[in-house]
Amino acid sequence: MKIAYLGPKGTFSEEAAVRYFIEDDVEPIMYSSIFEVLEAVDEGKVDKGIVPIENALEGTITMTTDGLIHHDVWIEGEAVLPVRLQLLGNPGAKLKDIKEVWSIPPALAQCRMFTREIHAETKHYSSTAAAAEAIQKEARMDAGAVASEWAAETFGLEVIQQDIHDNDCNSTRFVIITKSPKHRVETGGKAKSMLLITPTEDRPGLLAIILNVFSSLGINLTWIESRPTKKKLGTYRFFIETAAGIEDDQLQRAKTILETYGYDVRTLGSYIKKEL
Amino acid sequence: MKIAYLGPKGTFSEEAAVRYFIEDDVEPIMYSSIFEVLEAVDEGKVDKGIVPIENALEGTITMTTDGLIHHDVWIEGEAVLPVRLQLLGNPGAKLKDIKEVWSIPPALAQCRMFTREIHAETKHYSSTAAAAEAIQKEARMDAGAVASEWAAETFGLEVIQQDIHDNDCNSTRFVIITKSPKHRVETGGKAKSMLLITPTEDRPGLLAIILNVFSSLGINLTWIESRPTKKKLGTYRFFIETAAGIEDDQLQRAKTILETYGYDVRTLGSYIKKEL
Repeated sequence: MKIAYLGPKGTFSEEAAVRYFIEDDVEPIMYSSIFEVLEAVDEGKVDKGIVPIENALEGTITMTTDGLIHHDVWIEGEAVLPVRLQLLGNPGAKLKDIKEVWSIPPALAQCRMFTREIHAETKHYSSTAAAAEAIQKEARMDAGAVASEWAAETFGLEVIQQDIHDNDCNSTRFVIITKSPKHRVETGGKAKSMLLITPTEDRPGLLAIILNVFSSLGINLTWIESRPTKKKLGTYRFFIETAAGIEDDQLQRAKTILETYGYDVRTLGSYIKKEL
Repeated sequence: MKIAYLGPKGTFSEEAAVRYFIEDDVEPIMYSSIFEVLEAVDEGKVDKGIVPIENALEGTITMTTDGLIHHDVWIEGEAVLPVRLQLLGNPGAKLKDIKEVWSIPPALAQCRMFTREIHAETKHYSSTAAAAEAIQKEARMDAGAVASEWAAETFGLEVIQQDIHDNDCNSTRFVIITKSPKHRVETGGKAKSMLLITPTEDRPGLLAIILNVFSSLGINLTWIESRPTKKKLGTYRFFIETAAGIEDDQLQRAKTILETYGYDVRTLGSYIKKEL
């Protein structure tokens, strides 16, 4: 089974892919953007894909939400990966010698207290994994990468200092996507489903109406995200994740009511959360 | 009056700053990040600042929302700037010779049809202005920058091809910030206000309650954005922009009701929109 994920090697996305599909016989295939992962699934080049949709500190990953709008794919799974950041260096590198810290800007921002404490300069890379690879390739002993233990294993680096992030509650949630017709539908108490709800007219209170329909039917919502329609500033469509399976009677009623109110409702998927 | 804005020279932020403050005697001061602009205002190093908060195609600019949470500043104005993208080149450069197009990734994405049509390679820069400056400095005749007319004027470049964006409805809205105690409060039919509403407990339906309070009082909302609390994945606080001035009786009632429900309500500002 071919699985598309966001590369390069050693990223959190790769770790999530391997951990999620650990029991399956998979062939992971790396792509260089979230858009390309979604496209590969949509065009049937791979069986499944895994993309990050939300980070606990950074919020929604809009490349994924916007990509889901434009591709005919189905969300069949959700995975939550804890994010722990390590200072990685070449074997033998000492903390006292580290003068530079390399990573992506959000990871560096999340380790601000640590980098300040060791008086290190920072340098930007396009991914945590790219920073780790550069440390290894350039054989630097005075620089370290902010990346995961997974990246340390990938590039033969050592953890110089463990858990250097300021905030202990970081995690990223991923969605697992497949081509729509092959979906399996989750039911039961733990099932969630994702809807994309687009108003067909522009007037105030459009989100309030949507939320009231769900609350009137006793359906809890687990995630709400608005994205611009890209037609006019100030007009939006809504990603709504419900704590109800897509075939639940109440959810079907919610869809009918919203459609009758004049919303366009597209079902994006049905899944059960898995902690990695 | 000192005005802080996001540089470098030639950006849309600079254009917005100059157009917004056109009638005032201002000294624009450039900063290299949105965070630094907010900090400069908060620490009293400048009188005012201007930062982008939403783009019609890309959505919310989360560096601004997250920065507003952590700085004690007051939003006193809103400005909407149309975004038009031009292909800029050195004087005398011809469209048929352009083999490379330089800009920030979102601007390149917004001109995909054009770059495909001319079979150009793309190269990434940290801002549209940085790309335009590089074209000028390197005196390239076979490369162009995707940037604004403002950048063309700033760097002495020519518009080789006008309005190369795929989508004609792009614009960016900015907020004008000042230090809280000096604020002026807008009232009347066109006044808007911005609130930051933080739930003090974690349970379903928190946003629905907020929206119902406003709708029960007949207050229209013009923008709703949820941002992670950064404490636990799946918990949020809400930016709510209302079509009501902060001293309107109905808005004061909404605040009292929300506080009684147990929400923390912070007023971020009060302003009237200005089209640039």
